[in-house]
Amino acid sequence: MRAVARAHPNIALIKYWGKRDEALVLPMTGSLSLTLDIFPTTTSVELDALASADIVELGGETARGTAAERVTAFLDIVRRLAGSSVHARVSSRNTAPTGAGLASSAAGFAALAVAASAAYGLDLDGPALSRLARRGSGSAARSIVPGLAIWHEGDDEHSYAEPVPGPDLGMVIATLDARPKTVSSRVAMRASIDTSPFFPGWVDSTRRDLAEMLQALAAGDIERVGALTESNALRMHGVMAAARPPIRYLSPQSVRVFDLVSELRSAGLAAYATADAGPNVAVLAPAADLAAVRDALASEVPAAQLSVAHAGPGARLVGATEAAS
Amino acid sequence: MRAVARAHPNIALIKYWGKRDEALVLPMTGSLSLTLDIFPTTTSVELDALASADIVELGGETARGTAAERVTAFLDIVRRLAGSSVHARVSSRNTAPTGAGLASSAAGFAALAVAASAAYGLDLDGPALSRLARRGSGSAARSIVPGLAIWHEGDDEHSYAEPVPGPDLGMVIATLDARPKTVSSRVAMRASIDTSPFFPGWVDSTRRDLAEMLQALAAGDIERVGALTESNALRMHGVMAAARPPIRYLSPQSVRVFDLVSELRSAGLAAYATADAGPNVAVLAPAADLAAVRDALASEVPAAQLSVAHAGPGARLVGATEAAS
Repeated sequence: MRAVARAHPNIALIKYWGKRDEALVLPMTGSLSLTLDIFPTTTSVELDALASADIVELGGETARGTAAERVTAFLDIVRRLAGSSVHARVSSRNTAPTGAGLASSAAGFAALAVAASAAYGLDLDGPALSRLARRGSGSAARSIVPGLAIWHEGDDEHSYAEPVPGPDLGMVIATLDARPKTVSSRVAMRASIDTSPFFPGWVDSTRRDLAEMLQALAAGDIERVGALTESNALRMHGVMAAARPPIRYLSPQSVRVFDLVSELRSAGLAAYATADAGPNVAVLAPAADLAAVRDALASEVPAAQLSVAHAGPGARLVGATEAAS
Repeated sequence: MRAVARAHPNIALIKYWGKRDEALVLPMTGSLSLTLDIFPTTTSVELDALASADIVELGGETARGTAAERVTAFLDIVRRLAGSSVHARVSSRNTAPTGAGLASSAAGFAALAVAASAAYGLDLDGPALSRLARRGSGSAARSIVPGLAIWHEGDDEHSYAEPVPGPDLGMVIATLDARPKTVSSRVAMRASIDTSPFFPGWVDSTRRDLAEMLQALAAGDIERVGALTESNALRMHGVMAAARPPIRYLSPQSVRVFDLVSELRSAGLAAYATADAGPNVAVLAPAADLAAVRDALASEVPAAQLSVAHAGPGARLVGATEAAS
C-alpha cells in the first residue's frame, strides 16, 4: 500500500514546554494551539516487502543520521500496532520557508502518522492518530486537529489533542532575520527542567492559564485570549532565560515585533504576540484584522517575511493506492 | 550646619528585586553590587531654623510632588534620629546623562544620607549610614560602600551593605535609545511579587546565587562571577516578563548588546551583560579589558552612548561648614 497525507503546522497559544516522560512524549502540562492553513507538509509512505531497511527522503534528499532514525523509530511504533515487520519508503516535503522555525516537525509527524497508519492498514480515529503523532514530536499531536486544539496532559492513553470551539482567529507569522538556532527545543526543555528555578512556577501557572484560556475561548473574549497568549509565551521565554546557562531565543527583531504589537493594541487593534523556541514571532488577531496587522508590520519591519494564516485543516489522507508489487 | 556629600551609582551583579517590608525597605534577598567611579551626585543639606518646611532643589529646579515628598520623608527619619525639628534646604545635582536610568536614586539617597546626617550632627558609622540610605531607596544602601558591596537581607538592624573583597572589575555602561520607562521599579517589584508565578523561584535561587557569587569573588574566578551576573540579571527580567500584565524593560537594542557580549566571549573576552529595570545594559569585565569591550561595542552599536567605569568610592562628605545664621 502507498498512502499520502498532508498536515499543517500549529502555533500554541498556551505552550507545551517540558516533558514528564521522554519516551512516551507526555507533556508536563496540557497546551492549546491553532492549526494554520499555510506551509503544509505532504508525506507519502509506501510499504516495500523486499526492502531491508526504511528509506527516508526529506525534501528530495535521502535523510541520514538523527532525522532518519526518528522516522524509523516512529515507523517501529506503527509496525508494532499493525503487527507488521515490513519496511517502508517515506518521502516528505514541507513548504515552510527555510529557517522559519515553523514547527515543521509538528506538521511532519502529523502527516507521517496519518500516511503510515493508512499504509500499514490501521484504522485509527482522531484521538488515536493524535496519540500516535505525539510519539514522533509532541506538538504533532495538535496538528492532527483542525483549528483550535487542546492537547491533554493525561497519561499515554489520554494524552491527545481534540478540537476546541472558539472565535475566528488567525495569525500573521513574522519570519525574521534569524540567529542560527544553536539549542534545539528538546535540549532547551530538558535544560529548563533541570536548571531553571522557575520551572515549578511554569507548570502550575500554565495549568491555570489553560483553564482560563478555555473559558476565554468559550466566551469569545478575544482580549482575554490574546492577553493569555502573549503572557504565556513570555513566561515560557522567561523559564528558559532562567536556565543555566541561559537560553535566549528572542532576537532584537523579535523584541521589536513584540513592541510593535503592543503599539498596535494601543492603536485599537486586538493583536497579541507569541513566539516558540526561535526568533520568529506569530501575531494572533481576529481573522478580520489580519490584513491590517500585516500591513502595519510590513511598514515597520521591512526585513521580516510576513505570512497571513487562518485556521487550517487537520491532518488528512490525500491519496491511497494499492502499490505495484 | 551645612554639609555637602558626594556618592556614585552602583550596578548590581546579584539583583535586589522585591521588598519584604515596604516601609522599612527590607529586601526579599541580599544583593551584591559594584559602586562605580562615574556619574556622581553631589548633595548639600543646610539647616534653616527659620524655615517652615524643607526646600528641595534637584538639578537646579525646585522639586515638587513625589520627589520632594520622598526627600522630606527621608529628612524626617534623620530628624527623629537627631531629635531635631529644624527644616533644611537640600540641593542635589547628578551628572548621569538624562534617561540613563543609572540608579540616580541610589547615588542620590546615599549622598543625602551622608550630608543630612552630618548637617543634623549625627555621627554614624558605615553600617548605620547604609541602613539610613536604604530607607530612601533600597539600592542606596550599597552606594555608601566603595567598589564591591554586599547588602544583607537581615532585619532593620542588620540590613545594610558592607565591602566585599574581589578582583578588579569594571563596567562599560551602554546607554541606549530608550523606550520611555512606563513602569517604575517600585511598581514593577510589587507586580512581580503579586502576579509572577516565578517570584518564589527567584527568591530561592537569588539566595543561592549570592552565596555562589561570594565564593567566586573570593576565588577571583571572573568567569564564574560573570556567568552568575548575566544569569541573575536574565532571571530578574524573566520574573518581570512573567508578571501579569507582562513587564518588559529590555529593548531590541538591549538584546543586541546581550548578543554582542556573547560574541565577545566567544572571541575570548571575559565580558558579561547585566541590566536593571530599564533598557540600558552594563557590561562587566576585568578592568584591563574595559577599553577593548568599549571599542567592540562602539563599532557594532553606534547609537549607544558608552561610558567606561571602574570601581568607585563610597559616599563621603566633601564639605561641612558652620552656616551663617
